Amino acid sequence: MPLEIFGVTGLPEIEAGIDLGSVISTVAAANGTPIIDGDIVVVTSKIVSKAEGRTVELATVEPSSFAREWSARWGKDAAITEVVLLEAKRIVRQLGPILITETHHGFVCANSGVDQSSSGAHGRAVLLPADPDASARAIRSALAAKGANAAVIVSDTFGRAWREGQTDIAIGIAGMQPILSYIGQVDPHGHEFQVQALCTADELAGAAELVKGNLSRVPVAVIRGYSWEVDESATIAPVLRDQSRDLFR
Amino acid sequence: MPLEIFGVTGLPEIEAGIDLGSVISTVAAANGTPIIDGDIVVVTSKIVSKAEGRTVELATVEPSSFAREWSARWGKDAAITEVVLLEAKRIVRQLGPILITETHHGFVCANSGVDQSSSGAHGRAVLLPADPDASARAIRSALAAKGANAAVIVSDTFGRAWREGQTDIAIGIAGMQPILSYIGQVDPHGHEFQVQALCTADELAGAAELVKGNLSRVPVAVIRGYSWEVDESATIAPVLRDQSRDLFR
Repeated sequence: MPLEIFGVTGLPEIEAGIDLGSVISTVAAANGTPIIDGDIVVVTSKIVSKAEGRTVELATVEPSSFAREWSARWGKDAAITEVVLLEAKRIVRQLGPILITETHHGFVCANSGVDQSSSGAHGRAVLLPADPDASARAIRSALAAKGANAAVIVSDTFGRAWREGQTDIAIGIAGMQPILSYIGQVDPHGHEFQVQALCTADELAGAAELVKGNLSRVPVAVIRGYSWEVDESATIAPVLRDQSRDLFR
Repeated sequence: MPLEIFGVTGLPEIEAGIDLGSVISTVAAANGTPIIDGDIVVVTSKIVSKAEGRTVELATVEPSSFAREWSARWGKDAAITEVVLLEAKRIVRQLGPILITETHHGFVCANSGVDQSSSGAHGRAVLLPADPDASARAIRSALAAKGANAAVIVSDTFGRAWREGQTDIAIGIAGMQPILSYIGQVDPHGHEFQVQALCTADELAGAAELVKGNLSRVPVAVIRGYSWEVDESATIAPVLRDQSRDLFR
């Protein structure tokens, strides 16, 4: 059986307070492609944030002097810069108009993952979910309540070092471990395996992007036919390299 | 129609000089899943290297003093270290036993992508293909000769900054551009799009890994149902961030 990936089309505009897992389940079923046991449901973080009310009205933000000066210099909105700084644990790189931060969650990304596009209104910024693992668990629970044992990944679109172009990666997970370890296993010739651990969660998130697209407003995709083991304790934490082990931070 | 991804199982052990594209085409057809127009065929670089004879007998390598000293200190094979250095344009980071290099192609990765596992014999190292775009073009041509207009990606398994776990990414491409640009497009609310360019080639390579696996000896996967435009001039070059634009090198 091939691996299959399809988008969940026809989702309504997501408002704060909505039960996202229930909505996904209902819409997928209405599309004739209900979520089933073993599926992996990949949800774009932006709709998770909207459902959780993780948005900021920029008019309510009082930028610091630091935010105002830097923003003026580079033609940026000082209120957004202030929001970016509030979402950051620390600044990893600041060069010209580029601001790479480490978020409070531990993600290294541009602008703390704060997004001003597709926010539903001008003057509003969408933050990353406060606890993307908890978001994923809530969606997984809602899907389970509808009868499907599905893993859930919350994804976002991040840049990388060294390579141009962004890719979708996992920022939250529920039901399955994000990393597949090969440590101690040997190849057919008896060599210890060179690849020690694969971040399948990121590969799954990127694969889901291929059907979601960023312009097509399909913020949820289902991956069917990928084998995974249920692990209720799974979080994204194993993917976040500790700064002490990181040669590029 | 969902996106479908399946592995091409039953490939023979790949020897130097083999016409890889023909073999893939023949085996896929024999499996009852012939390559068809519009497919994207993702080929693990290791079998490309083997087909192209990009292997080195370690007994023939004369390590430099630098390679010998460092290898002795960290319990490494000096001949492999020498091969890694020969494959490098420069060393990006060298800390403890870790050696991150920029290859002559411009890839930033551990050990110049040199692999000692699954080499078919002890004492042999497998290098990255000399020109992975040319490798991809040759496979694409062979598939075309068998009647299928398929894009080809040569993939490898690389680590990243900031995140644990490796992922499969594209190191060579033929027939389609590796990056999908959204520059100048606007979202449904009229905002310019925050994501400017997606490296779909890397997402496709990662998606293919999900069916290939690293232990299962399925080094080729086919992605069906992903829309792409034919571009015979495509190369991986747009993915390689120039050092002058890179904040992490």
